Amino acid sequence: MVSPEAGRHAIILFAHGARDPQWAEPFRRIREQVSMMSPELRVELAFLELMTPDLPQCVHDLVRDGVRQMTLVPLFMAQGGHLKKDLPPMVRELETAHAGLRIRVTPAIGESAPLLSAIASWVVQQAS
Amino acid sequence: MVSPEAGRHAIILFAHGARDPQWAEPFRRIREQVSMMSPELRVELAFLELMTPDLPQCVHDLVRDGVRQMTLVPLFMAQGGHLKKDLPPMVRELETAHAGLRIRVTPAIGESAPLLSAIASWVVQQAS
Repeated sequence: MVSPEAGRHAIILFAHGARDPQWAEPFRRIREQVSMMSPELRVELAFLELMTPDLPQCVHDLVRDGVRQMTLVPLFMAQGGHLKKDLPPMVRELETAHAGLRIRVTPAIGESAPLLSAIASWVVQQAS
Repeated sequence: MVSPEAGRHAIILFAHGARDPQWAEPFRRIREQVSMMSPELRVELAFLELMTPDLPQCVHDLVRDGVRQMTLVPLFMAQGGHLKKDLPPMVRELETAHAGLRIRVTPAIGESAPLLSAIASWVVQQAS
């Protein structure tokens, strides 16, 4: 039997993780909104550390459900060691481990000019 | 002589900091945009760790220039231990150390519904 998920595209919202469970709340809200805007997409959260699922677990669950095309969106304000050094080998390893798997990694939030402008406008509002 | 900065309001953009110098680039761009949008404000960056200036140094420099009213905007995606536990005592200590100083701390990025919506829309674009 072919899984109903087979051939479906997934978005992985990749966040840092923290000890405080409430920390994940904004990311859960983003996930809900993305799911509402694009019901055809499967949208999952994955964390670098301290929270579950981690990226390998998230990808494993998606692969189990037949998903092979994934877009990983780093919900990080900026590109540091986590995105430049830790993430690429994790992605390569996962692609090697799962036949046919393709994970496309997008830029981070701070590399989006429109989002930086939105944040700057919000900062100005906060100060007034 | 009264400093030309006296009575001026300052925004402190407070970010985590990282080892990679390039990490700060999005925050520098936000600072530039806020300065352009609100030239009457003094806008500074301060970091929790690994980058300079840290918050005490930033506040010290502002106080030296006569600034007493500051709005601290946490450029963090979410509220974790850093904002809930580390920041409040730092702010209280600075306000105690500098007579007349008032630092107002705003919510973080992930507590702004419009910014979460903007990020969600950007995520959907990334996946298409």
